[in-house]
Amino acid sequence: MTVAGEEMHLLVERLYPLCRSITGDGVRATLEIVGEYVPLEVHEVPTGTQVLDWTVPQEWNIRDAYVADAAGNRVVDFAASSLHVLGYSVPVSATMPLSELRAHLHTLPDHPAWVPYRTSYYQPEWGFCLAQDTLDALPDGDYEVRIDSTLADGHLTYAEHVVPGQVPDEVIVSCHTCHPSLANDNLAGIAVATFLARALAQETPYYTYRFIYAPGTIGAITWLARNAERVERVRHGLVLACAGDPGRLTYKQSRRGDAEIDRVLRHVLAASERPHHITEFTPYGYDERQYCSPGFDLGVGSLSRTPYAGYPEYHTSADNPDFVSPEAMADTLALCREAFAVLDRNRRYVNLSPYGEPQLGRRGLYDSLGGRSDAKQAQMAMLWVLSLSDGEHSLLDVAERSGLPFGAVAAAADALHGAALIKA
Amino acid sequence: MTVAGEEMHLLVERLYPLCRSITGDGVRATLEIVGEYVPLEVHEVPTGTQVLDWTVPQEWNIRDAYVADAAGNRVVDFAASSLHVLGYSVPVSATMPLSELRAHLHTLPDHPAWVPYRTSYYQPEWGFCLAQDTLDALPDGDYEVRIDSTLADGHLTYAEHVVPGQVPDEVIVSCHTCHPSLANDNLAGIAVATFLARALAQETPYYTYRFIYAPGTIGAITWLARNAERVERVRHGLVLACAGDPGRLTYKQSRRGDAEIDRVLRHVLAASERPHHITEFTPYGYDERQYCSPGFDLGVGSLSRTPYAGYPEYHTSADNPDFVSPEAMADTLALCREAFAVLDRNRRYVNLSPYGEPQLGRRGLYDSLGGRSDAKQAQMAMLWVLSLSDGEHSLLDVAERSGLPFGAVAAAADALHGAALIKA
Amino acid sequence: MTVAGEEMHLLVERLYPLCRSITGDGVRATLEIVGEYVPLEVHEVPTGTQVLDWTVPQEWNIRDAYVADAAGNRVVDFAASSLHVLGYSVPVSATMPLSELRAHLHTLPDHPAWVPYRTSYYQPEWGFCLAQDTLDALPDGDYEVRIDSTLADGHLTYAEHVVPGQVPDEVIVSCHTCHPSLANDNLAGIAVATFLARALAQETPYYTYRFIYAPGTIGAITWLARNAERVERVRHGLVLACAGDPGRLTYKQSRRGDAEIDRVLRHVLAASERPHHITEFTPYGYDERQYCSPGFDLGVGSLSRTPYAGYPEYHTSADNPDFVSPEAMADTLALCREAFAVLDRNRRYVNLSPYGEPQLGRRGLYDSLGGRSDAKQAQMAMLWVLSLSDGEHSLLDVAERSGLPFGAVAAAADALHGAALIKA
Repeated sequence: MTVAGEEMHLLVERLYPLCRSITGDGVRATLEIVGEYVPLEVHEVPTGTQVLDWTVPQEWNIRDAYVADAAGNRVVDFAASSLHVLGYSVPVSATMPLSELRAHLHTLPDHPAWVPYRTSYYQPEWGFCLAQDTLDALPDGDYEVRIDSTLADGHLTYAEHVVPGQVPDEVIVSCHTCHPSLANDNLAGIAVATFLARALAQETPYYTYRFIYAPGTIGAITWLARNAERVERVRHGLVLACAGDPGRLTYKQSRRGDAEIDRVLRHVLAASERPHHITEFTPYGYDERQYCSPGFDLGVGSLSRTPYAGYPEYHTSADNPDFVSPEAMADTLALCREAFAVLDRNRRYVNLSPYGEPQLGRRGLYDSLGGRSDAKQAQMAMLWVLSLSDGEHSLLDVAERSGLPFGAVAAAADALHGAALIKA
Repeated sequence: MTVAGEEMHLLVERLYPLCRSITGDGVRATLEIVGEYVPLEVHEVPTGTQVLDWTVPQEWNIRDAYVADAAGNRVVDFAASSLHVLGYSVPVSATMPLSELRAHLHTLPDHPAWVPYRTSYYQPEWGFCLAQDTLDALPDGDYEVRIDSTLADGHLTYAEHVVPGQVPDEVIVSCHTCHPSLANDNLAGIAVATFLARALAQETPYYTYRFIYAPGTIGAITWLARNAERVERVRHGLVLACAGDPGRLTYKQSRRGDAEIDRVLRHVLAASERPHHITEFTPYGYDERQYCSPGFDLGVGSLSRTPYAGYPEYHTSADNPDFVSPEAMADTLALCREAFAVLDRNRRYVNLSPYGEPQLGRRGLYDSLGGRSDAKQAQMAMLWVLSLSDGEHSLLDVAERSGLPFGAVAAAADALHGAALIKA
Repeated sequence: MTVAGEEMHLLVERLYPLCRSITGDGVRATLEIVGEYVPLEVHEVPTGTQVLDWTVPQEWNIRDAYVADAAGNRVVDFAASSLHVLGYSVPVSATMPLSELRAHLHTLPDHPAWVPYRTSYYQPEWGFCLAQDTLDALPDGDYEVRIDSTLADGHLTYAEHVVPGQVPDEVIVSCHTCHPSLANDNLAGIAVATFLARALAQETPYYTYRFIYAPGTIGAITWLARNAERVERVRHGLVLACAGDPGRLTYKQSRRGDAEIDRVLRHVLAASERPHHITEFTPYGYDERQYCSPGFDLGVGSLSRTPYAGYPEYHTSADNPDFVSPEAMADTLALCREAFAVLDRNRRYVNLSPYGEPQLGRRGLYDSLGGRSDAKQAQMAMLWVLSLSDGEHSLLDVAERSGLPFGAVAAAADALHGAALIKA
């Protein structure tokens, strides 16, 4: 897992400098790099396309941007960090005194060394983000400002990767790709999703797993609008965000609150004895907002470490690759794998010999040696699966009611299924 | 509110001397005074009328009553307090030794200075109530006893006042009018009900509010018997009693326990941060017993301060106008208004754009300035109303699940309704 | 009750020496003695009979068994205790060195003075159980081993005793009869069941009570297999085991967890203020495993004192008549009687005068004296029964919601039924 941790961190570092937004070449470049790890199907949706209540906006691209002093020195330079430009800035080329420029400058007075992250997707504006310290050092006088950007009809870009399963029922894993140079939000989520996909591909999972890499809000809305039929097949889902900071794991439940994904995550987090936090659904946060909107109401929760806006580095230049660690990403990945192992194996069975206990000994299922604690556990797990397999209880129900590990319960179900004592 | 408190206390003082009972001219005089504050429709139901399992009894009226000593001095005198006569006493005119008279005298040995309140509605009897101290001071010897009362065919009197609403669905507010000179039980309830009616009349409430002034038990039973069709339209209700003592507020839930009135009162009391007490339904107390009887099972709770029999002054001469305060009655009234403001506004909506979030910004509903905490709250309230408006959740559900104030949620619903994003 | 305690202990002492197993003459002798207390219908089911997923095994009988040293002294002797032989041992007659014999000897190294209880019903084996101290004292050398047993086609024996009730709906009380010289497990259960049957026969209970004396597992399975139609009439049931040790009472709930028997036992144990323990159902333990298997899912719980395997004496020679006391058995019996008194009387009524309160005074049901606390309780109980008698609430529901004793509630129901105010 440590190897995966290091690899994920390298991926974060490669993606970090790119200027992502809800559209544009920065997203395409990001998906190209992710595509080196898992094959991606990339979708381009034209500007103006109606998607649910929204419309795909014009595509934004930017080549250069700076503020230069009278001597021609770039005192704020997009080349140094994609955060320096207000996202979706309209082009500008002008010279103006600092007093006039100030209305277009964004800083964080409480964190004077950090550069904030700001956007204005749906109101035409231009602006620069910089450290308060930088601003404070600027002498009065005229400054040249230039943003070499274009806002034009084009496309919204998103991608999918599918790990085929035994059934067409789907689990979606969704991560947003619209944030520029921010490591935890959401390059860590992209990295964990990508390595999770690679791990799942090594198995033949029960469910079909669909990974969605799309810009926040408009991207998820676009995917939902274009996949009305597929949405019917989505059984469970997870939004991954803020997956690499040093905080404890946080699972935000789906709007339903008792969806199977909610129960699985609660169970696995509790069983893992990791420090963690379970929160109720709120209609704010990441794209679970869209998946859980009342018309869809999908069983989609959200996994993060420190959640949205819960750390001072959030949406600032301090959310850089140093803020996320290989260990934290490896831990998030491990938890995802544990959860999906349960989810993937969690089914309801029907006891085919429900009147009295079946004679396990005759079938070689009853430990004749006795005494060994794992044999005792296996035997108890079989009795529990037989007792609760009435078509209403899942293996997770059995694990929770019996207090036995899910793995022992699943192994018992396999043994009983092999002896034709239960059917799926 | 202090003005209303003083006015309510004046009303209590005016009503206090009248000799009320379950029938008779004392009730009529009471309703005449209340009628100066809000117009009343007075009903007279003849003796012998069958009302559910009961029969309207004979009407009782009393003009004078006393116990006089050998010298002709009135040692117990109805003119001093209506409590001095056992309610529904049959007439008597006799002279008898104290030893014989004692069987007809009621005192409170534990509170020797107080006069108890006693009645015998359905067993023909006569008697006097007096202070133990008075009794102890009486020398042996003959006493003249006289009760100038009549028990004859007549009527049971009750009244209604209606505040019309936008819909015919009704909320009833019921208070008992049968207790003689007792201030908290129930002149304070009568006063709060009356000023609540006046306040509601200033608005155009959603529901139609019906105020019922009727004698306890037989009065509520008479109203229910005569309003079989109207009962079908009663959605919620509140019995008001003991509304003016210095204790904390107590809400006794309806028999259902999860009626909307129960949820509203629990919510408003908790949100108000008043010290208060919520109790389960019991089939004992005031007229919630009748409204919540299993055949009706109405969503009617009971609001009081210190509940029934919970204070030593209960049913004694110590429950006089000094025992109830303008502040306590004003507080009870304020709580009623807060509760009815929520009840009246609590409806279920359906999100008309339930697939993904609707684009609030396009409709001017998304705060473009950001940062202001009330704007943030308004925005969260809109997201919550959209998320939960599936026809199953009321605005109160939204307020409770989101933790937002009900008022903010209702305002968000108004804004979304104005933008045609939800419908009732 | 102390008399019953002593009598039950005498019964335990009489049954203790017999060598019971899942079949054989020891079971028959046991049932013959129990039959002196209550008439039994004894059933003999032939070897080879298919019962649910099982087959009735061959019958095992044993006449003598011993290990003798070179001098002919019996160092282990079945005549001293039926525990000394592995249950269902096949016959053996041989001489062998101690080194070879050891594989057939069972001891308890942690309790060197105690003899363990061991069986091998479905794997042909022979063996002896003895104290570790005895084994340690045996010199090397040859030993004569002899088990004079037979395993042959015969019968499985079980018995029933029925206390007829007013309705054909049944309550079953089941106790296992297959353990040899073990007092708590389960001679105490047999004794309590037997004296419970005698007590119930003194009354005319509402339900028909069926007592089942059968070997564990195969016996309950045999009863269920042969009584498919009767099972339909079983409403409630209790498995009695470990009923005489000094520990507190333990009630293990049925698989349903909210069966009426579960609610009754929880209520009665709580109301009795005995120290006790309520446990969830597990598919391990005694014959509740069979009655609660998902195909039957009967409302059958299990009552014991210290539960199965919860005391060191469990399944050893230390579980002898000294381990069970008359007081403990009397206490278990008393609890059973209290529980069945509630169960037997717990019915749902319908208020025939559900609109408003009926006028109790007219019917002589309203205490005219007032003040007496039992009269007050009786009156409250009547109001509660009237309030909750909507066909959905049982008298136990009334008792639990009102906080009144079940007996007061049942008496109120009787009074109201007598006045034709409620019907069953």
